[in-house]
Amino acid sequence: MPENFADRLLHAIEQKGAPVCVGLDPVYERIRESAPESDDGPGGQRRLAVVQAFCERVLEIVAPIVPAVKLQSAHFERYAHRGVELYFRMIRRARELGLLTIGDVKRGDIGSTAAAYAEAHLAGEWAPDAITVNGYFGADGLAPFIETARDRGRGLFVLVRTSNPSAARVQDVADADGTAFHERLAAEVARLGDADALVGERGYSCVGAVVAATAPDEARRLRDVMPRQVFLVPGYGAQGATAADCAAAFKPDGAGAIVNASRSVLYAHERDKHAGVTWEQAVERAARAFAEDIRGAVGG
Amino acid sequence: MPENFADRLLHAIEQKGAPVCVGLDPVYERIRESAPESDDGPGGQRRLAVVQAFCERVLEIVAPIVPAVKLQSAHFERYAHRGVELYFRMIRRARELGLLTIGDVKRGDIGSTAAAYAEAHLAGEWAPDAITVNGYFGADGLAPFIETARDRGRGLFVLVRTSNPSAARVQDVADADGTAFHERLAAEVARLGDADALVGERGYSCVGAVVAATAPDEARRLRDVMPRQVFLVPGYGAQGATAADCAAAFKPDGAGAIVNASRSVLYAHERDKHAGVTWEQAVERAARAFAEDIRGAVGG
Repeated sequence: MPENFADRLLHAIEQKGAPVCVGLDPVYERIRESAPESDDGPGGQRRLAVVQAFCERVLEIVAPIVPAVKLQSAHFERYAHRGVELYFRMIRRARELGLLTIGDVKRGDIGSTAAAYAEAHLAGEWAPDAITVNGYFGADGLAPFIETARDRGRGLFVLVRTSNPSAARVQDVADADGTAFHERLAAEVARLGDADALVGERGYSCVGAVVAATAPDEARRLRDVMPRQVFLVPGYGAQGATAADCAAAFKPDGAGAIVNASRSVLYAHERDKHAGVTWEQAVERAARAFAEDIRGAVGG
Repeated sequence: MPENFADRLLHAIEQKGAPVCVGLDPVYERIRESAPESDDGPGGQRRLAVVQAFCERVLEIVAPIVPAVKLQSAHFERYAHRGVELYFRMIRRARELGLLTIGDVKRGDIGSTAAAYAEAHLAGEWAPDAITVNGYFGADGLAPFIETARDRGRGLFVLVRTSNPSAARVQDVADADGTAFHERLAAEVARLGDADALVGERGYSCVGAVVAATAPDEARRLRDVMPRQVFLVPGYGAQGATAADCAAAFKPDGAGAIVNASRSVLYAHERDKHAGVTWEQAVERAARAFAEDIRGAVGG
């Protein structure tokens, strides 16, 4: 049996001393702003070369600071098949640098199709260590992802409560018992993730959940509903959540979650433009400040 | 302004005389069964060549019979970037054959990321005419898809009620007023899709919905909740729904929906093995029988 993903993730977090993850959301228009010297020609191929150079530098800079990176598939898919090739190449590069990788693909479908997605995104040699999935199809849509994660020593983060402003209107609707929709989904994730073959030595399942820091009250309740789930926590930084908001996703011992920041780290240079630092220095400073901020708020 | 997607789709349905769509879900292991002579070697590249030959033949066979095809992204993503390249090539080929194309990608994310997905899957020259999207993020996650569809003359089908067995347990949960979760989402889709710039000359919006034939009672209710949405209807054939079940998604005039069948058409040969027909003849017969079956049940 391959090592359980949750065990691997918790171990990596301890080694780096901070439960944080940098999101790789390479937006060409903003990279160009950070590194205009790279932009010496038009065309998709040239853009992709700029994106690649940016991603590689970011991975090298953050590798000593954070245990994991999250690659946002959408920003690679923008370049069609060449972007997808780069996505898998960057996963490989991140792994060479000792980073755990989360593929933020948010796939989800009926069982037979979910099996193809699981094969595509969790099974191959260069598949990431974990992916995000959408749970709207329910148990039979999640089953192929769970089986593949179990068999390959990989992990899942099922979307439960997302970080965007409209999430509440859809996900927080309460049923006749007063239970929010996302709490029901959370109970389903807890049930599906609670099998001996899925739970590692530290008591956490390889089936985790996405729980936004922008909804700390909900996160606190969800911590009870999903005791064995590692929470992947978006919403810090550019989306407005503070480290104190993020702390709601953790257990009292300071474990059980990993906070992601993407734009606030990648594009830190936009804020520091006149501070006399290079974009790379800005990324490093922002990554260190992010890790320190979360470490301080979580304790443990 | 480019022509409204709903107008284009309804026109194509009238021209072919049947509101049906064949789903391109190329599963190598089953293709090989249909056309073993093509399988003369191992390896991903060879497999992909077999998949390509199969898809091209299916497109040629169904082009005179159906107005549209739906490409299931998962089965192309299984082959990583090469599969994605083939996906876009098959969209191009389908368009050359006069078919409308629906990219079954079920993407969905927060606004800034959804914008990248919309750019990737709806904006380019060879993007499909419409895509499926997941509405779990709510209005701000759907907005970039809707804006791109509007500006490019393309369409969306938002997942409302899916066809898989577990869907009911998640999507049919009722709130305190007795309204099912999927009905709330449907009302949101109806609201977001009901703008002058989105609704075509026939009174339908380019923002449609996925409504499963496996839940005909729900489909009938949803027909009232979403009067301006074209329904993309999965579940016929391999998933067990009948033409009569599908009829619930249509208006009394026989318009307003398009029924998809994938496996029951693509792999018809598996059923007809001893009937002395080639796999291609089996696909053609199944496509014609499917169109006839739905035409008969829907009337109009």
